[in-house]
Amino acid sequence: MSTAHTPAGPRPVKAPTGATLHCKNWLIEAAYRMIQNNLDPAVAENPDALVVYGGIGKAARNWDCFEQILASLRSLGEEETLLVQSGKPVGVFRTHADAPRVLIANSNLVPHWATWEHFNELDRQGLMMYGQMTAGSWIYIGTQGIVQGTYETFAEAGRQHYSSPSPAEYGGRSPEGTAPGLGRPGAQAPAPAPLEGRWILTAGLGGMGGAQPLAATFAGACSLNIECQQSRIDFRLKTRYVDEQAADLDDALARIAKYTAEKKAISIALLGNAAEILPELVRRVKAGSAPRPDIVTDQTSAHDLINGYLPAGWTVEQWKAAAADPAQHADLKAAAARGCAVHVQAMLDFQALGIPTVDYGNNIRQVAFDQGVKNAFDFPGFVPAYVRPQFCEGRGPFRWVALSGDPEDIRKTDAKIKELFPEETRVHRWLDMAGERIAFQGLPARICWLGLGQRHRAGLAFNEMVKSGELKGPIVIGRDHLDCGSVASPNRETEAMKDGSDAVSDWPLLNALLNTAGGATWVSLHHGGGVGMGFSQHSGVVIVADGTDAAAQRLSRVLWNDPATGVMRHADAGYDIAQRCAREQGLNLPMLNKD
Amino acid sequence: MSTAHTPAGPRPVKAPTGATLHCKNWLIEAAYRMIQNNLDPAVAENPDALVVYGGIGKAARNWDCFEQILASLRSLGEEETLLVQSGKPVGVFRTHADAPRVLIANSNLVPHWATWEHFNELDRQGLMMYGQMTAGSWIYIGTQGIVQGTYETFAEAGRQHYSSPSPAEYGGRSPEGTAPGLGRPGAQAPAPAPLEGRWILTAGLGGMGGAQPLAATFAGACSLNIECQQSRIDFRLKTRYVDEQAADLDDALARIAKYTAEKKAISIALLGNAAEILPELVRRVKAGSAPRPDIVTDQTSAHDLINGYLPAGWTVEQWKAAAADPAQHADLKAAAARGCAVHVQAMLDFQALGIPTVDYGNNIRQVAFDQGVKNAFDFPGFVPAYVRPQFCEGRGPFRWVALSGDPEDIRKTDAKIKELFPEETRVHRWLDMAGERIAFQGLPARICWLGLGQRHRAGLAFNEMVKSGELKGPIVIGRDHLDCGSVASPNRETEAMKDGSDAVSDWPLLNALLNTAGGATWVSLHHGGGVGMGFSQHSGVVIVADGTDAAAQRLSRVLWNDPATGVMRHADAGYDIAQRCAREQGLNLPMLNKD
Ligand SMILES: NC(=O)c1ccc[n+]([C@@H]2O[C@H](COP(=O)([O-])OP(=O)(O)OC[C@H]3O[C@@H](n4cnc5c(N)ncnc54)[C@H](O)[C@@H]3O)[C@@H](O)[C@H]2O)c1
Ligand SMILES: NC(=O)c1ccc[n+]([C@@H]2O[C@H](COP(=O)([O-])OP(=O)(O)OC[C@H]3O[C@@H](n4cnc5c(N)ncnc54)[C@H](O)[C@@H]3O)[C@@H](O)[C@H]2O)c1
Repeated sequence: MSTAHTPAGPRPVKAPTGATLHCKNWLIEAAYRMIQNNLDPAVAENPDALVVYGGIGKAARNWDCFEQILASLRSLGEEETLLVQSGKPVGVFRTHADAPRVLIANSNLVPHWATWEHFNELDRQGLMMYGQMTAGSWIYIGTQGIVQGTYETFAEAGRQHYSSPSPAEYGGRSPEGTAPGLGRPGAQAPAPAPLEGRWILTAGLGGMGGAQPLAATFAGACSLNIECQQSRIDFRLKTRYVDEQAADLDDALARIAKYTAEKKAISIALLGNAAEILPELVRRVKAGSAPRPDIVTDQTSAHDLINGYLPAGWTVEQWKAAAADPAQHADLKAAAARGCAVHVQAMLDFQALGIPTVDYGNNIRQVAFDQGVKNAFDFPGFVPAYVRPQFCEGRGPFRWVALSGDPEDIRKTDAKIKELFPEETRVHRWLDMAGERIAFQGLPARICWLGLGQRHRAGLAFNEMVKSGELKGPIVIGRDHLDCGSVASPNRETEAMKDGSDAVSDWPLLNALLNTAGGATWVSLHHGGGVGMGFSQHSGVVIVADGTDAAAQRLSRVLWNDPATGVMRHADAGYDIAQRCAREQGLNLPMLNKD
Repeated sequence: MSTAHTPAGPRPVKAPTGATLHCKNWLIEAAYRMIQNNLDPAVAENPDALVVYGGIGKAARNWDCFEQILASLRSLGEEETLLVQSGKPVGVFRTHADAPRVLIANSNLVPHWATWEHFNELDRQGLMMYGQMTAGSWIYIGTQGIVQGTYETFAEAGRQHYSSPSPAEYGGRSPEGTAPGLGRPGAQAPAPAPLEGRWILTAGLGGMGGAQPLAATFAGACSLNIECQQSRIDFRLKTRYVDEQAADLDDALARIAKYTAEKKAISIALLGNAAEILPELVRRVKAGSAPRPDIVTDQTSAHDLINGYLPAGWTVEQWKAAAADPAQHADLKAAAARGCAVHVQAMLDFQALGIPTVDYGNNIRQVAFDQGVKNAFDFPGFVPAYVRPQFCEGRGPFRWVALSGDPEDIRKTDAKIKELFPEETRVHRWLDMAGERIAFQGLPARICWLGLGQRHRAGLAFNEMVKSGELKGPIVIGRDHLDCGSVASPNRETEAMKDGSDAVSDWPLLNALLNTAGGATWVSLHHGGGVGMGFSQHSGVVIVADGTDAAAQRLSRVLWNDPATGVMRHADAGYDIAQRCAREQGLNLPMLNKD
């Protein structure tokens, strides 16, 4: 019955552009283009291995599965739904026109078995795939996606710790419900950036970490970015995300001293191992022989101790060889974990010197804690510190992509956002800077943080622009899984929730079910993104504005409901901002409304 | 703004019956009646505590939440969806007429925190609820639900081990794809039951375990049922699920000897602790002073070491007091675990004597293994042994409930099933026996195992009967979470999968998303059902046949897709029966179809 099958292999992938459909409608075509866009060499970290970003975050399980996903989408009916299980197309079923066209579950394991060991075993056997967040759910838009989030984080850190008028105001809200400097910095805009003449110390210039130098520059700060792979530095120099590379630590510190004195927001890359350089820097700062950093953080991939973190004393070649050889994994993991412990100890030392220090969601504190660094969690995660107040209003990483492939479409949507939300001056500044400095990777795309009550208006406006022909093609709208209502991740997004519900993952599951019910175009449920196996559950949503009235109906539901689940989740946890927002926006939250 | 709120408290609950709607349509009314039916004193194990079955499996988080769920359903719009998070109504959102009216997520925890300790802590704080399977998803139908499954299991065990012609045939399929004796016993029906004159040894007469004596009788066997709570024995005597209670072990064994000799299939309850009685029985059997059991299993709630298992040497009063006092939980857990180890050792001893021994899905082997019983997993789970071949064809615990409250409606549907599926003689026998011996609890309901290609035909036929007025009211159709495509539970439903994918939980998540997309009436995602926190993830689905054409559309999608995901999952794992079934039924499974 079956003929010999030659397995498919790596090939250069690029999303189609223009007005010609390869699938039965634009909803299906969107999935078809976006999975390919995720693997565009201009977008993906390692397209031959199907790796999009974040260590081993993949778009499809293997090349056979990838080709078959494309084939299944090409033949998918307008009332059918494709199921994807950890990057493999496993079934096509009859649903209806208002149902998602693709439903995805990636990397999910029954909790007791939800470890890297078990996952890697299944992965080796071809039974699983690590989907990270937007890799396996086909809405990664390259490093831009993270620049906005990192910018918001750094800017808010600067405002809290270094702005002259009211650093104590953090977390408070004005009577009108607007946070000073938090997403709506109107009043502060003309003041000099609080980080002017200051510098940020960090490591990791990978898929997400590579956004740090540019975000620091946008926020007005210098930055020293330690990265152990020259190829990663080269990539960031080439795309202008980082400005200069220093020859060694002395050279780097000299440049930092010079540029901070000159108040020039210049970013510097330094080749080396953070687990070796940070302790050395602590010594020098204590000795007064090096300038004090003003903010310390880290974006190595400590969440993945096989593929993500170079152990102290190892060469990159040793590391890669060990990662490729299962027999060496135990040694590699142990060595990487020891490195993380040293690294975190240095961060704690900086904190003890009074320098704001923050974990950037890579699970490095947990690794160090498991290694015996008992106070590893003394410094906070970036979410409770700087992001959660925005989540309480349903704000988060809203993003969209022009399926036409025409950058002009994005420029028009940028203008539309400014027109729709004249009061959002921080968003305006972001859009202006992004338009200038951020090179598109793959299909033209834009991200900006919008909240409940804004996202659906943006989606409906885009849909109108597609309908009227103002745009050359439909717009795909999505978000990161790191959003207000879509993730349970106790070491990151849901760290230190007010009511202690950090680990309750009913919320992202409800988010995915509701987005499916509302008629999103594709919906995904993932495990282990960002912080690794066992430590998170999260959901993704993507919806297409194809200019039809049916799409408008779906957009008005999904882009309202999705951020609303975030407000709901935070209101349920007892956050005032969220409860106020829920009331203002008229959410029906039965247990809150009944009193 | 808020007035003082008196918390709601326990009250007797009973589902409304008859033709009067309390909600905007029958879909919503169905949820409204079914949650109340779950708490009917005739249905629930402990209605005052909102406990439906299975230790602490609840229908709502607390009485306030319960009343507010009812209120929310009464006011729910026909295009709205209520979200329920671990038994609490948390939000009402706009969806559309073909979307589910309720979406439920119960007891889900991020894997690293998915333990009883963490759950109990959250439960105490009022942040969580244990939903078991059909308790928190409002489709429990009392002990009948489990009688059918237990009957299938015992009958199949008898066929495998004690039928004269072809005990070796188990798992094999005839060329036509039908299994001898597996769900389609046609040929064997006239032969004497293989368990005639034989007896089953088991323990636990709780919500599910209480089905064992009746199921054994249906399968032609005597049974000895050890239960430590007299109240549980009384309940089963009263409902005629168990025939007699023995005074002590000697009396019990004398009765067994008598009835097996007389080939009378009589069930005997014995008050006592299985962890004490089983080792004693092993001693006596070895000494030749007691009759050998022919099958050994167990249905104590070993999955819940606080509320589910009486430690050896403890009184029930001690146990209940310790369970109610968090300070004693550590001691109680340790003692219960020690009891389980002794209990499992006795089961292993029976197995060593050549007696078929099987775990009935209560995680007792894992507990014993963790206690150091290294060969605890030497005896198999009941699923790979007796159930999986049926799952490969999408067969599983299909059930339905008459919203009218009229038993006549169920009698008519029983007849309809026999008419629709004349070849299913095993189903016919079940329906006849059930009609005779099984007393309805709460709303009249029926269960029978049907497979892919049968379930949607049954659903559509029921819908026609509602439409024509043949039935007095709509029919609610659902299933257990223990079904072919809806669960990942490596110690039970997905134990020892052919490809090793036991712990992959992408499958139940996809099942829930697809059922949501297809237009089920309510859909749920649970964690920890049956085998406890950390050990399972599973999904539930319920759909209403209200006699409308729209319902017919939804039924034809959902009742096809739902079992089809089971065939898909087992075909993907490499089971021949499932791959053949997928081909015969024309499923579109991209990676299988492409060769
Ligand atoms: N959304 C978020 O919450 C968020 C945002 C940004 C980053 N993060 C987390 O930060 C981490 C980085 O993400 P990424 O996508 O950039 O990962 P990545 O794997 O693409 O990049 C990690 C980089 O760190 C470098 N590196 C590893 N060990 C090093 C060491 N000892 N010294 C110096 N450099 C080292 C690697 O060479 C690599 O370039 C991840 O754990 C991610 O989850 C989370
Ligand atoms: N669908 C399935 O896979 C399936 C089917 C049946 C049972 N089970 C499992 O079997 C277990 C029982 O389920 P249930 O709903 O009947 O639970 P339950 O808690 O209602 O009943 C358990 C019974 O065991 C008794 N018991 C506890 N410890 C005992 C001891 N040491 N000796 C004698 N009796 C003891 C209790 O008094 C109680 O009546 C659960 O773990 C359940 O998950 C699973």
